Amino acid sequence: MAQEEGHTAVTPGSARPPGGQPDPPASPWRTRGARVAYRTPWITVSEYTVMRPDGSSGIYSVVDPGDNVAVVALDASERIWLVGEFVYPLQRFGWMVPSGKREGDEAAEAAAQRELAEELGIVADNWQALGTYDLSCGISAQATHLFLARGLTRGMPQPEGTEVLRARQVALDEAYGACLRGEIRDAPSVLGIWRAHALLRGGG
Amino acid sequence: MAQEEGHTAVTPGSARPPGGQPDPPASPWRTRGARVAYRTPWITVSEYTVMRPDGSSGIYSVVDPGDNVAVVALDASERIWLVGEFVYPLQRFGWMVPSGKREGDEAAEAAAQRELAEELGIVADNWQALGTYDLSCGISAQATHLFLARGLTRGMPQPEGTEVLRARQVALDEAYGACLRGEIRDAPSVLGIWRAHALLRGGG
Repeated sequence: MAQEEGHTAVTPGSARPPGGQPDPPASPWRTRGARVAYRTPWITVSEYTVMRPDGSSGIYSVVDPGDNVAVVALDASERIWLVGEFVYPLQRFGWMVPSGKREGDEAAEAAAQRELAEELGIVADNWQALGTYDLSCGISAQATHLFLARGLTRGMPQPEGTEVLRARQVALDEAYGACLRGEIRDAPSVLGIWRAHALLRGGG
Repeated sequence: MAQEEGHTAVTPGSARPPGGQPDPPASPWRTRGARVAYRTPWITVSEYTVMRPDGSSGIYSVVDPGDNVAVVALDASERIWLVGEFVYPLQRFGWMVPSGKREGDEAAEAAAQRELAEELGIVADNWQALGTYDLSCGISAQATHLFLARGLTRGMPQPEGTEVLRARQVALDEAYGACLRGEIRDAPSVLGIWRAHALLRGGG
C-alpha cells in the first residue's frame, strides 16, 4: 500500500476543520488550531483545537483511514462471493464481502474493481452503485461505497501480504439471513447485502 | 464524559494483541509489542508491533472510540424519532437516530436508554435488541448495538454541551426510504432502521 495522506488530514499549522475548508456559517463549532497527532501509511489522526457549540474550549480528534469500498459480486445463479479472514482488531475470524481502501484520488468504482480482482481474481462486466454510508461519523469521515457487480469472470487472485483469505459462494438470500442473524457482522458487508437484496427482492 | 480506557486499549509494555489476550492459534498474526500511540478522554490509538501473515514485520494501529449504541424509537403511529446535528468530522449537518457511546462497562441496553433520555427526554417501556455490527473492523473493534424502543413517554432532553440537536418524527417507511436514497447516511442509523423495517414489514 502506497504512503499517502488521507482526505481529512490537516495542513500543518492551519486552523481549518476536517476537509480543509473554513468552518461554514452553519457549523456551531469553531476551529482554532489543527495538528497531526499520529500518522502511519494507513491512518492519520488529526487533533483540532475547537470552541464547542456551548462556547467551551476543547479538542476534537478525527481519524482518517481513507474511504472503504465493498462489492457484492453476484453470479448467474444469484450466489454472492464472501471472503473470510482473521481480523486483527477484532481478534477473530469473520466473513465479509470483498472490500478494501480507496487509494488516494482513485474513483470508488475503480477501487471496487481493483479489490475484487486482488482478493478473488474476478472481473465483472456490470457495475452498479448501491449507495454510500458514513461508518462512524463521530470520529471519522470514513465512508463505505457499495457496489453490485455482475457478469463475473474468475481468474487468479493477488492478495496483499497481510491477507490470508478464504473464499466461498452463498446464495444471496442465505447471505441476507446471515446478516439478520449476526453471522455476518461487518457493516459495509451488511449494508451492501441489504441493498442488493432490496434491489433484487423488493423492499428497495 | 468520564476519562476511561476503551475496551481494546493496551497494557503498557505488554505484547498482547487488541483485547489483551495472547494471539490465538487461529491467528496468522503474531504480536511482538504494544504501546499507546495517542489517547484522549474519547479515543485511544494503540500501535502493535506485529509479524504479518506473510512473515514480514510491521505495525498495526487500532483505534478504540468505545462501542456505539443506536435506538430506533417507534411511537404508536409507527413514526420514529430522528435527531439532527452538525457533525464535526463530516463538516455537514446530518439526521440520524439517537445514538452515542457505551461508557465503560455499561450494558448496551442501559447505554441506549441513557442516550434516548439525554437526547430526547424519552423513556420507553419496551426494549428489543436488533443486532450488533462491527463498524470499521480494519481499524477498530468498535461495534454498534441496535435497539428498538416502544411504549414512549416524552420528558425534557438533557443534551451534552457538545450537542445542539434538532428533533423530528418521520414514518418508519419514510425513514427506510431515506436510507435507500442516501438521505440518511449514518451507518448505525441505517442498520437500525433496516432491522426495524425488516422486523415490522417482513423481509426479516
